[in-house]
Amino acid sequence: MTLRWELGSVVRLGSSHRVTTLSCALRAPPPARGLHSESPSAAPQRRPFSRVSEEDLTFFRRILQNRVITDPDLLESSNVDWLRSVRGSSEVLLRPQTTEEVSQILKYCSNRLLAVTPQGGNTGLVGGSVPVYDEIILSTSLMNDIISFDNVSGILTCQAGCVLENLSQYLEDRDHMMPLDLGAKGSCHIGGNVATNAGGLRLLRYGSLRGTVLGLEAVLSDGRVLDCLSSLRKDNTGYDLKQLFIGSEGTLGVITAVSVLCPRRPASVNVVLLGCESFQQLLETFQLCRGMLGEILSAFEFLDSECMDLLKTHLELTNPISECPFYIVIETSGSDATHDAEKLHNFLEEAMTSLLVIDGTVATEDSKIKALWSLRERVTEALTHDGFVYKYDVSLPVDMIYQLVLDMREHLGGGAKRVVGYGHVGDGNLHLNITSSAKDPSLLASIEPFVYEWTAKHRGSISAEHGLGLKKRNYIYYSKHREAVSLMSKIKDMLDPKGILNPYKTLPDTSPRSSN
Amino acid sequence: MTLRWELGSVVRLGSSHRVTTLSCALRAPPPARGLHSESPSAAPQRRPFSRVSEEDLTFFRRILQNRVITDPDLLESSNVDWLRSVRGSSEVLLRPQTTEEVSQILKYCSNRLLAVTPQGGNTGLVGGSVPVYDEIILSTSLMNDIISFDNVSGILTCQAGCVLENLSQYLEDRDHMMPLDLGAKGSCHIGGNVATNAGGLRLLRYGSLRGTVLGLEAVLSDGRVLDCLSSLRKDNTGYDLKQLFIGSEGTLGVITAVSVLCPRRPASVNVVLLGCESFQQLLETFQLCRGMLGEILSAFEFLDSECMDLLKTHLELTNPISECPFYIVIETSGSDATHDAEKLHNFLEEAMTSLLVIDGTVATEDSKIKALWSLRERVTEALTHDGFVYKYDVSLPVDMIYQLVLDMREHLGGGAKRVVGYGHVGDGNLHLNITSSAKDPSLLASIEPFVYEWTAKHRGSISAEHGLGLKKRNYIYYSKHREAVSLMSKIKDMLDPKGILNPYKTLPDTSPRSSN
Repeated sequence: MTLRWELGSVVRLGSSHRVTTLSCALRAPPPARGLHSESPSAAPQRRPFSRVSEEDLTFFRRILQNRVITDPDLLESSNVDWLRSVRGSSEVLLRPQTTEEVSQILKYCSNRLLAVTPQGGNTGLVGGSVPVYDEIILSTSLMNDIISFDNVSGILTCQAGCVLENLSQYLEDRDHMMPLDLGAKGSCHIGGNVATNAGGLRLLRYGSLRGTVLGLEAVLSDGRVLDCLSSLRKDNTGYDLKQLFIGSEGTLGVITAVSVLCPRRPASVNVVLLGCESFQQLLETFQLCRGMLGEILSAFEFLDSECMDLLKTHLELTNPISECPFYIVIETSGSDATHDAEKLHNFLEEAMTSLLVIDGTVATEDSKIKALWSLRERVTEALTHDGFVYKYDVSLPVDMIYQLVLDMREHLGGGAKRVVGYGHVGDGNLHLNITSSAKDPSLLASIEPFVYEWTAKHRGSISAEHGLGLKKRNYIYYSKHREAVSLMSKIKDMLDPKGILNPYKTLPDTSPRSSN
Repeated sequence: MTLRWELGSVVRLGSSHRVTTLSCALRAPPPARGLHSESPSAAPQRRPFSRVSEEDLTFFRRILQNRVITDPDLLESSNVDWLRSVRGSSEVLLRPQTTEEVSQILKYCSNRLLAVTPQGGNTGLVGGSVPVYDEIILSTSLMNDIISFDNVSGILTCQAGCVLENLSQYLEDRDHMMPLDLGAKGSCHIGGNVATNAGGLRLLRYGSLRGTVLGLEAVLSDGRVLDCLSSLRKDNTGYDLKQLFIGSEGTLGVITAVSVLCPRRPASVNVVLLGCESFQQLLETFQLCRGMLGEILSAFEFLDSECMDLLKTHLELTNPISECPFYIVIETSGSDATHDAEKLHNFLEEAMTSLLVIDGTVATEDSKIKALWSLRERVTEALTHDGFVYKYDVSLPVDMIYQLVLDMREHLGGGAKRVVGYGHVGDGNLHLNITSSAKDPSLLASIEPFVYEWTAKHRGSISAEHGLGLKKRNYIYYSKHREAVSLMSKIKDMLDPKGILNPYKTLPDTSPRSSN
């Protein structure tokens, strides 16, 4: 039932009119443009990196043998992102198996001034995981060994290319679980999850990767290996360098291995779908839920009626409860099924009695749980069938998150096909999506910068969990002060002085000068 | 019942023979020594910072009025650490109230090349919070405003000088709690907690400050204000700069404000004291406990029989259960008292039936809970009455933590008065303490580097939660690779090029060259 993003199926998912070619073919760079082109998400001019030569390929083949891919058909799915919104023109894909191989590759690329795009499962939504021009693609897909798992502490250590769902399965057999879960779990790599500081569905309960990632190993741009692969819950011996790499989208180093603190697998899981009349009632339900479900609450997600309509229209999913303006998906995870059921019963009774919710259904069996979860998880997929999608991922004070959807609808009038909202209420994280029948520059001009200005005005983040990548790098100032961006640039210069790692990503095209 | 570390009482706690003068009086620096003196914890030579002049004092008084302290009696308690093991000779204590004042002070000090030691509650255990020579002490004690608290999200934003216990009290009235708790809560400042990445008693449940601190504001060495005071659960717009300041012990910037994600206050709390025959049984009890108490487990702490003896001998505390080699303190926190009691009952029955524990007592009333907690929390205090104390704070794979105590006892033979172990089992964090009737260089030579080598051999951390400060800076290589320390030095140079912020702390005296 769950959406799987297999690499092989990426090309089939979208239709070609949705591919925006942001870069041009190898050896034919576009005419020079100013750094501020019409759209701040467009790529800047290609930087003067070297081009891959036959000698370079010979070197790579000496290290990797047949794991150097140059066949254009095989390269296709790595050059284009999952949304088919960004396309690079890399002619080389490297598939190392070991940290030592990554180190040799980067040392060589640094000396030769060759740009490199690290790539995990390529499921990102901001154009961060594909090349913009002819950057070499460094894939972690063959770095998929589990190094160790300690059943007493719950600490897993593995290579960066392990697929999240495979890790989940491995841990399930050992009575544990991964502290994160997301729709792309069938394809995304744990290294990519860490590099993008992925959030997902369990953050409410288990916290962010900044707390659950205990250690990591990264290869720096010049090939040096930084071993911070600690597997200890506590270590206060100096600066926590691993944090630099968490969420830096491959711009500071290539993550090659991680160690993660994994919680015990819960003995009992329940999922509830509820319907509310208003977003205010949804928020009150959240407050009630925090109090009455307490420590067993593991997710509090929402979708609006437009999303439910998309699921019906494009995926033929059935809404098991009556039509409502808002739907909530609540998950509980606990160690005692009887206690959990009792807490849930008391909460539902209170929510119904006080008229906060108008309808609902509870699932305790695995298949029904998956069916309810798919209503939330498959909204992204349903949207891709509705036309061209403009995607936004903002975090805001919880009580403000749906106001953005309402204000956007009013602002756009009849200009958009749909304006929908769903996301992680517990984290104050809204996924705002706007569809139109085809790509529409005038609609885009109505959406941006309105959406960013609105978010900044309410002290939100213009990228809650998706990162900045290529598409949002120039919007960073809506969420970060100049001093912070200036310091980011200094860190980039320090760790990657030649700028070869994932160029054109995360950092804005023009770096600010410090105000002092 | 709980230990309070009030500044006023610091001086009375120790006896003078335990004060090691690591620095000398102002204007009389010690004879030059090599960077590797006999003891790696001794201070290096004073660096060529400027000395505070009358003009400097005039400038500070213009900004701070009467909040410039130069009276030696008033300075005394800020020049010496809580353990009375390190003493500086600062002649100036500055007490700013605002970020702007801190900014003006640091800008001036940077221009004048005056060294500065930031100081919170001065409860650190590694000599990190007091000056080594004549550094200016920059106290956060008057920066104690609560800026905001959002009852829906549980996000607290406050100035750095708020005392942890005051914040806990404030939140208790609002049905929330701080995600951290430690013995020094009556004195320590939240800014100091964040600057040292304090762990404490609730880490097992609520995770580290790296996850719960959502934002912070810091003043850099040249006076620039870095505003990362986000109060959002999720923000993936660029590098997470706040992490640089968490745990960097005031060497990269002065934290002036923080925002923290605070959990709901539990409706029900239980505390249990159990006795075990062996450490192996204690570990098996931990495993059982993780499974049966699950999500309501909030602490799993231990002390050995030597610790219990210290509590009786020096503090006249009573052991409420029979004599055992090991004692466990377990805390549960949950939202439903009946459910929690039932889980606890089932767990205790199983632990008793399977002979994992031989005796135990449960507390549900507040006063009895405090009494049981004090058996764990007051061990530190009891140790200070036993003579000179050598303190170590290591983390290790959980099953190895007590082996270090046993091996140390055997290694030292009759050379020490006591070798005791206690700490946070759930975090793999051992507090190893060795007492002798007086300071004993030959005993120290037997302990160090043995303790560090043993820890490194077992892939542990030589400082789990206390940090490195002055005392442990040169032992960093036991837990960190050369590349990591090299990168730390580069970050220090980038953020504090003149090295004025908390000099002689955290970083080793000799920085390694990068291996490439």
